[in-house]
Amino acid sequence: MSVVNLGLSGLAEAVAAQGAPVVHVDWRPPAGGDAVAVRALTDLYGLRSLDIDPANAEVLRRLDTGVPVVVDVRRAGDVVPGMTDRTLLHPGPPIAWDDVCDPLRRSMRAAAVAEGWARQVDEAEALLATGRITLAAANDHATVVPMATALGPSMPVWVVDNAAGGVRAFAPVGQGAGDVAWMGRETPAAVERLVFLREVAGPRLARILASIGPVDVLGLAAQGVQMGDDVHMRTQASTNLLLRSLLPAVPALGDDPATQEFCAYLSANHLFFLTVAMAAAKSLTLAAEQVAGATIVTTMARNGTTYGIRLPGSPRWFVAPAPPVEEALFHPGYGPEDGGLDIGDSAVLELVGLGGPATAGSPAVAAFLGGSMADAARVTESMRRICAAESTRFKLPTMDFRGTPLGVDVRRVVETGVTPKVNTGILHAHAGLGQVGAGVATAPPAVFRAALLASAAS
Amino acid sequence: MSVVNLGLSGLAEAVAAQGAPVVHVDWRPPAGGDAVAVRALTDLYGLRSLDIDPANAEVLRRLDTGVPVVVDVRRAGDVVPGMTDRTLLHPGPPIAWDDVCDPLRRSMRAAAVAEGWARQVDEAEALLATGRITLAAANDHATVVPMATALGPSMPVWVVDNAAGGVRAFAPVGQGAGDVAWMGRETPAAVERLVFLREVAGPRLARILASIGPVDVLGLAAQGVQMGDDVHMRTQASTNLLLRSLLPAVPALGDDPATQEFCAYLSANHLFFLTVAMAAAKSLTLAAEQVAGATIVTTMARNGTTYGIRLPGSPRWFVAPAPPVEEALFHPGYGPEDGGLDIGDSAVLELVGLGGPATAGSPAVAAFLGGSMADAARVTESMRRICAAESTRFKLPTMDFRGTPLGVDVRRVVETGVTPKVNTGILHAHAGLGQVGAGVATAPPAVFRAALLASAAS
Repeated sequence: MSVVNLGLSGLAEAVAAQGAPVVHVDWRPPAGGDAVAVRALTDLYGLRSLDIDPANAEVLRRLDTGVPVVVDVRRAGDVVPGMTDRTLLHPGPPIAWDDVCDPLRRSMRAAAVAEGWARQVDEAEALLATGRITLAAANDHATVVPMATALGPSMPVWVVDNAAGGVRAFAPVGQGAGDVAWMGRETPAAVERLVFLREVAGPRLARILASIGPVDVLGLAAQGVQMGDDVHMRTQASTNLLLRSLLPAVPALGDDPATQEFCAYLSANHLFFLTVAMAAAKSLTLAAEQVAGATIVTTMARNGTTYGIRLPGSPRWFVAPAPPVEEALFHPGYGPEDGGLDIGDSAVLELVGLGGPATAGSPAVAAFLGGSMADAARVTESMRRICAAESTRFKLPTMDFRGTPLGVDVRRVVETGVTPKVNTGILHAHAGLGQVGAGVATAPPAVFRAALLASAAS
Repeated sequence: MSVVNLGLSGLAEAVAAQGAPVVHVDWRPPAGGDAVAVRALTDLYGLRSLDIDPANAEVLRRLDTGVPVVVDVRRAGDVVPGMTDRTLLHPGPPIAWDDVCDPLRRSMRAAAVAEGWARQVDEAEALLATGRITLAAANDHATVVPMATALGPSMPVWVVDNAAGGVRAFAPVGQGAGDVAWMGRETPAAVERLVFLREVAGPRLARILASIGPVDVLGLAAQGVQMGDDVHMRTQASTNLLLRSLLPAVPALGDDPATQEFCAYLSANHLFFLTVAMAAAKSLTLAAEQVAGATIVTTMARNGTTYGIRLPGSPRWFVAPAPPVEEALFHPGYGPEDGGLDIGDSAVLELVGLGGPATAGSPAVAAFLGGSMADAARVTESMRRICAAESTRFKLPTMDFRGTPLGVDVRRVVETGVTPKVNTGILHAHAGLGQVGAGVATAPPAVFRAALLASAAS
């Protein structure tokens, strides 16, 4: 007698104890045995897959092969579609002022002051409470913003074109480190940094890009992945590659104090590449979401209160409460009780093979996960279980140059119960103290289940 | 009966065939059975080791813990000790003009023209043949030069201080890529690049360093190793980190065409960090060679004709013919028959834990070795067999952050028959065509045997 045992191991052990050969298969019921989800999966993996699989293949092709180029830096209000001069764009799903989390409220108040709508933050608070400032999800305006960024119309944005999709995406020029609004700070220095971006950094970046011409953003990111960047939590190598490209156009900026300040900002800002990478990723998802009927996630974003995803072909958000960042390291003196909930649109990177999927190649991110490269590899392997393909652009040296996992399929997520891993920072939950840690966040299962059921019902 | 079998495996196989337990040890006679070398090893590993081991420990401490900082860029003739205004410094052991290999001859002729000693290269040839230009090994003047560099007195050099050793070392500012003398070219463009270094790059780098202050060279290199640099064949990450440090001082250089050319040169030169790393490494070996009685190599250099090493406490060179670079990739249209012999002082990097020892972490170098990271790891493992310690500064993510092998012990080299691996470029042997490939060179055993016997005899 030979035995193949599925699921619980008790029978296999009993057979083995009798000396009989037994093969044990660690099988678990899909979707944890959730009967409604299993029925939806049966449909979507069954006959429906004849329509879904070609749609997914086209989505994956667009995510994998589009070539986003950064062409300009412009005033947000002049280029972002549908953005009025009284709009603040925020991360994550749409949210009402009353529900906005503390770090994002502070960032919105700082933005209102920087825009000249209020003289100080308490005046900004009153203004925002009136509802006379439109709050809108950046993702609904072809834009993505990192962490607790509140993007006002006067702020400079990267303009990224993806010719293959005929689309253009935007993200704010990064605010840098320290006392900054995107980390939930609303100090005079944080406001001053926003003014610096508008008055100093934006115009100079525009002049540099006009001089050196369009830059292939993900070409730099692909090199960065070879150099230890996950291109989310860590963008040191990609940033430096970009700075090297910009350098020949620096002398023409002149030698005024503002230009010196600009160069000091570039030199000190190792996450400078983050937002241009986000805009590039958004331009890929914008092209991908034109394909109806697919089950590959094309929006994934958090606002510190809620976590939302979207599928191609529909503007509908699937939303659940934002989770805490569970695998994390905190700055000295801080711990999980200080950390705000998961926030930011930067999770768009995880949808195109960067961030979580690229963790296996990043010694710097490994430091947040136990310190060994094996710890880092586990994040990539986890993403591989729920992704439909592998990037042909981003290759992991530590995995024999295998591509990073690409294309989160809601079917796989619900089937396995494994949700995406997103490398991210952590903000102080309520005291306006800025960044207090960083780690790997795990997306909430509920949004994927809701998206799956909607797919099955459509 | 239990059997332990040493050496040839035949007996072990015979015993195993009888069903008896056998442990086979793949033992080989040390030094390949060379009786003279075995006698020297017996001495140097025996009672003599009571003196050698503490000396080696001090050498290793100096190689591992010195903190070289680049403080200035100066005219070589003004700062390099013992360099007259009619001196050309060259790589490798001392050599007479008649024995100089083709690429280095061309480089010397280009240097003579750039110095204004001759109007063109044939006039330079005649001048060099008269012996009125002193040719001297850079290593004998606290200096190291890469590939086929001929360093004239007007050229700018990095000035690197190692305070712990009370020493100062020098290396030329890199010539960059393309039509350049250090690759064995002597065209008008190659001469022009030397003039550019003297007139444009040198003074501007000096101004930048005066503005930003001393830079910790190996602090940047250590980051580079985390980012895929071996910091010899590949210095992309370290170069970009250095450029980022220099950036704040760029606006003050002004906006003249020469400064624009300077910035374009910086931006295009991914090996810019190579020579400053070499000067830093030389400053460590200069400090280490003050320790007498050690068996750790403190000079290793090639001039395309001969290959030489030195031990601490003595100026004596041990010399053998330079070998070809055997593990190599050639540019399209070229092959081993076109490649010149191993050349350059850059092997000083391999003595401090960079280059060959750091190969395991470098995807770019792996491409020259078969393409997989396992191929790259073999070079590091090979170095580990002959090195006495591990760097506490340079850590390999791909080897669980283990330090790179540090300190080549001639005893281990002769005992194992394994010689150092040096990551390097390959020049055209005779046609002045510049670089035709790159690869990993293996040092000749004879120089280590000679050094070992001299140690035993001293």
